Amino acid sequence: MTDPKRRGRRPAGDDTKAALLAAAREVFTEQGFDGATVRAIAARAEVDAAMVNHWFGGKQGLFAAAVQLPVTPEFVRDVVFASGPVEELGARVVRQFLTVWDGSGGGAFTTLVRSAATQESAAAMLREFITSVFGTLLKELGVDQPELRLGLFGSQLAGLGLARYVMRLEPIASADIDTLVASVGPTLQRYLTGKV
Amino acid sequence: MTDPKRRGRRPAGDDTKAALLAAAREVFTEQGFDGATVRAIAARAEVDAAMVNHWFGGKQGLFAAAVQLPVTPEFVRDVVFASGPVEELGARVVRQFLTVWDGSGGGAFTTLVRSAATQESAAAMLREFITSVFGTLLKELGVDQPELRLGLFGSQLAGLGLARYVMRLEPIASADIDTLVASVGPTLQRYLTGKV
Repeated sequence: MTDPKRRGRRPAGDDTKAALLAAAREVFTEQGFDGATVRAIAARAEVDAAMVNHWFGGKQGLFAAAVQLPVTPEFVRDVVFASGPVEELGARVVRQFLTVWDGSGGGAFTTLVRSAATQESAAAMLREFITSVFGTLLKELGVDQPELRLGLFGSQLAGLGLARYVMRLEPIASADIDTLVASVGPTLQRYLTGKV
Repeated sequence: MTDPKRRGRRPAGDDTKAALLAAAREVFTEQGFDGATVRAIAARAEVDAAMVNHWFGGKQGLFAAAVQLPVTPEFVRDVVFASGPVEELGARVVRQFLTVWDGSGGGAFTTLVRSAATQESAAAMLREFITSVFGTLLKELGVDQPELRLGLFGSQLAGLGLARYVMRLEPIASADIDTLVASVGPTLQRYLTGKV
């Protein structure tokens, strides 16, 4: 007996999204972020490659959804980088970072750190995603040493998440967002546009 | 037949140390850093409580050895905090942090992060150890908001370790120590003694 649900093209919508997410997790893990192609992921999911753009806006967005990052590359670009003066970029980053991850209850950040610390493939995927999304934006700032700046920026932001969500180190764990924007914002601003 | 090696008091030396470390891991996990007493750990190990001071210099040192921290509280106090002018404290911390963890090959740092991200008891022990060791030193600096400063300090230092050893984010992963001292030192200095 043939299961009729398994015949022919998959239906559009939620099933397609779920199939793409499952295939993306497999292919990103096997090939890394750079090695995985939209075509290979779509083939694994048995859907048309155009569905990746349709549902996720491209490979970066699909990756973000697959590892359950609560932000998209478009959000980083439009809401964080391009929505105010460059002199306040550090403060905007801290505010959005905490708003987004607080909104996920912090558990999603801990899951991400656990994956990166237990699987080299997860660390590699996350590393390549960060470099791909933020590296482009930093190069657009026209600053010297964009790679070093990106690394320093990433270290402080990841450490803030580690202290607040994983270690739950007080008073960082329950500090209000304004306090941390005032304290950590200047660090990120220096890493992005100051002397490093 | 009774095994003669199992009769009477344990021999001094390596066996005592190993028994204390094994007992410490159990009791710290069950009771947390604050709750665990030297007396309880020594009793679990079936050795005299004076052996804890003899081999580890006290509860903090035993904890550091039990979780395989490559530093002792005495090292933090004497080599990092008290060995130069307070205006260069941030630079000294970065240099010693990287020297010590580079020396362990970075694997020990990844193990620590993995434990903290997978077991709440490990996160709690580490949190209490940091607060206990660094909190005292920060209060001795006589600065305002010592708890917030400690949290900010911990966030940048942990994030640096995460980027260099866990994520292996370039160029942080292979940057020479002087580069990172110059870039990250001023951040720690501000967190410790500047405006936060």
